[in-house]
Amino acid sequence: MTDIKENNNSDKNLSSLENSDSTKDILVIGAGLCGSLLALRLAQRGYNVNVYESRPDLRVTDISAGRSINLALSDRGFRALRLAGVEDKARAICIPMKGRLMHDIEGRTFASKYSGRDGEYINSISRGDLNGMLLTEADRFENLNIHFNKECTNIDLDTNTVTFKDRNTNTSFNISSDVIFGTDGAGSELRKSYFLQRKFLFSFSQNFLTHGYKELEIPAAADGTHQISKDYLHIWPRGEYMLIALANLDGSFTVTLFLGHEEGTYHFKGLDTEDKIKAFFQEQFPDALALIPNIAEEFANNPTGPLGTIKCSPWHYKGQTLILGDAAHAVVPFYGQGMNASFEDVAVLDGIIDKHEGDWETIFKTYEHVRKANADAIGELAEENYYEMRDHVANPIFKKKRQLEMQFEKAFPNAYFSKYSMVTFNENIGYFEAMTRGRAQDKAILNMITDNAISTTIDMTKEQLKDVLHQVLEKTNDILDDDKIAKTMHH
Amino acid sequence: MTDIKENNNSDKNLSSLENSDSTKDILVIGAGLCGSLLALRLAQRGYNVNVYESRPDLRVTDISAGRSINLALSDRGFRALRLAGVEDKARAICIPMKGRLMHDIEGRTFASKYSGRDGEYINSISRGDLNGMLLTEADRFENLNIHFNKECTNIDLDTNTVTFKDRNTNTSFNISSDVIFGTDGAGSELRKSYFLQRKFLFSFSQNFLTHGYKELEIPAAADGTHQISKDYLHIWPRGEYMLIALANLDGSFTVTLFLGHEEGTYHFKGLDTEDKIKAFFQEQFPDALALIPNIAEEFANNPTGPLGTIKCSPWHYKGQTLILGDAAHAVVPFYGQGMNASFEDVAVLDGIIDKHEGDWETIFKTYEHVRKANADAIGELAEENYYEMRDHVANPIFKKKRQLEMQFEKAFPNAYFSKYSMVTFNENIGYFEAMTRGRAQDKAILNMITDNAISTTIDMTKEQLKDVLHQVLEKTNDILDDDKIAKTMHH
Repeated sequence: MTDIKENNNSDKNLSSLENSDSTKDILVIGAGLCGSLLALRLAQRGYNVNVYESRPDLRVTDISAGRSINLALSDRGFRALRLAGVEDKARAICIPMKGRLMHDIEGRTFASKYSGRDGEYINSISRGDLNGMLLTEADRFENLNIHFNKECTNIDLDTNTVTFKDRNTNTSFNISSDVIFGTDGAGSELRKSYFLQRKFLFSFSQNFLTHGYKELEIPAAADGTHQISKDYLHIWPRGEYMLIALANLDGSFTVTLFLGHEEGTYHFKGLDTEDKIKAFFQEQFPDALALIPNIAEEFANNPTGPLGTIKCSPWHYKGQTLILGDAAHAVVPFYGQGMNASFEDVAVLDGIIDKHEGDWETIFKTYEHVRKANADAIGELAEENYYEMRDHVANPIFKKKRQLEMQFEKAFPNAYFSKYSMVTFNENIGYFEAMTRGRAQDKAILNMITDNAISTTIDMTKEQLKDVLHQVLEKTNDILDDDKIAKTMHH
Repeated sequence: MTDIKENNNSDKNLSSLENSDSTKDILVIGAGLCGSLLALRLAQRGYNVNVYESRPDLRVTDISAGRSINLALSDRGFRALRLAGVEDKARAICIPMKGRLMHDIEGRTFASKYSGRDGEYINSISRGDLNGMLLTEADRFENLNIHFNKECTNIDLDTNTVTFKDRNTNTSFNISSDVIFGTDGAGSELRKSYFLQRKFLFSFSQNFLTHGYKELEIPAAADGTHQISKDYLHIWPRGEYMLIALANLDGSFTVTLFLGHEEGTYHFKGLDTEDKIKAFFQEQFPDALALIPNIAEEFANNPTGPLGTIKCSPWHYKGQTLILGDAAHAVVPFYGQGMNASFEDVAVLDGIIDKHEGDWETIFKTYEHVRKANADAIGELAEENYYEMRDHVANPIFKKKRQLEMQFEKAFPNAYFSKYSMVTFNENIGYFEAMTRGRAQDKAILNMITDNAISTTIDMTKEQLKDVLHQVLEKTNDILDDDKIAKTMHH
């Protein structure tokens, strides 16, 4: 263990200095959101941590280039940031979004809160600002060093040696380490080495949606204020495609268009001239078009990104290497949980290190054992939420369901939690449980509405509403019981 | 089009000679079961077909080496063989298995038919015999040439050029072709080129079970007869692991042990001495052990195979290449459908060629469009059937369900089809529909048995049984309706 300049979490610090772990060095590949937070936390525990990042330091070089997808920070993310003592610093750069603001094709807007409970909201945050804050926190630790412009090109899994190419000098060098963490994102080199080196049976999936995304910008007004309300996540849901916008601190909005690559009435491949792009926006998103002055230029210059989900197993090898975050479980952005899930990875791993410090093989096995089903679940939830988001306005039964759930949450805040609330605001419920229970609730409510089995008027008395809630909960439990019995057939 | 020596399917032949397809050459990579049947069918249509196979001709060289997994041929496979005019030749080398024979730990046996209807059974067949028959049929066509010992090492997707290494001379050569079919199995080089060359977004998954398999042999009796009944698929289900045996024409049985690689009470990694192997079999499969004289030798010499499922999309590129069979959708062997699904691929493709002959891009797109959900479904069904097979004896509710379904099928042969019957004996029901309806039926029955909502006695009158059937069908339809309403949320 080397010197520690400062530690915001003094309990942990003491215990780490007392621990008997003989690990000399930890190497982290990737200083993105997950890698930065992980490195910070490991440094706080007293480990000697070296982080290698292929890109330049984002605090001095702008490297976003139209490829961020706005981030929504919520409770699971905050839990992990709190553990590392940086929650307040993150909150200081957040813009709270208390709900969605839907824009219809005539430009009318409809607000929809995220929860019937007060104080449950998500937060727009800039990837660059948040990552920069974590890197600056990391810089305060003498036992943590971040090396930029060092691209991982190979990992020898048996000798635990990583080859990096220095992007400035174009020379390569090797680093060996007791323990290596791969937080190198969806295109992880460490994960690729698991796949290609075939030292063990590696289950792996990459699943691309037929849709892609492109980022555009609504600039700030001349006086630096936001041109539309910054207090909502703006959505232009159109069934086959969708536009969203999240506020930035500088008064601008980052806008993302989700559209088929080459399928559907409109698609990216077909929008190949300024006229076609503007005609599409004029027809479908006229109010947004009026706010995006450089649409043609941005359409041409910003890349069309793919939307993919990655799942794999095992995440670790020999107690020497582990992948976390997007490297292990990249998800599509439609639940606003990619970053939150990656941060939660760090918190879950940290709790397991507490119990098994020094025994990395047990730590890695236990971590995957408790985390895998939850990671798979958020991947599925994010894929299915795409359909829910873009069809939100069109389907009257969805609207009735949402309205009923709002009434439940408002009137009985401790008795009802929608799927969205469980996923987003309840960090003590794992994603898998949130998915399982949330799906059963949705199924119960949708079927009861379709069968006219329950009232969905908005003027029910509390007693009437309570009765409806009881029916929903009973039907939900029936569904869960029936599924459980059927599942005994396939475990 | 070149000369055709013979065609068993004269209709097709005439139409093919009249068609306007300008395709000069078709190249098929892999002369396994799927490739041989596909090549035969394409030759019957009049195409000039060249097939390249990495292994030697299996009719002259024994290449099985303990890695076949016994094959069970059933209705979907027969449909495709019939189309190519070789059904009778296949039936001649089949051993019908009318049901399962379960062996308990005391060596007692219990028979369980595959269906309550007469004439519904599966067939044990040797991969080598069947493949040899198809190759011999293929040899009768002058416009079909098979090149053995030619290993595919690269595919240039833009120029449609394949590089082969001649395994005899160790030299490489290139072949270009208008249309290339990859029937090169679970480790397909064509599929790898889709994955690695990144010319398009390729969704891909490989999922390994924690269990593997090893083949053993029960030799024929001294007089050449079978030592145990050849009329059943023998199963020794033990929950955590399972042994099965299928009869061969020479009086022997191919036995397959399914066991954890390194998890569970017993696992392959731990069975590393003759004593341990024999003690395990003595404890768990004493009646089988008595019939496997060379168990220690076979355990040491035969490889432990992995059990993996492969799914991917797209299956085609530019109307120039298409993957079929295991190359596109490898499945685990627990539904006995891997070969049948691959043969069915050929039949489905053939029907689409009928409609769009000459327009390969449309053929390939249409083929994937109609086939993909069915291929995914058999992958899932096969994985989940593992649990059903190995737990078959232990779970009393499964037994009651199976017995009730037998009664339904026997008394009302046109009104009830179990999931197994739909998958195995009803080639006019797609795998996806069989899975969806079959799962709903299973769920209905299991829940009604658990809730004591239906009688499951074996002495019901036909009227009583009819009443139970109606309850089951009604509950099944309720489940399907509820699922359909819930699914509107994710599409």
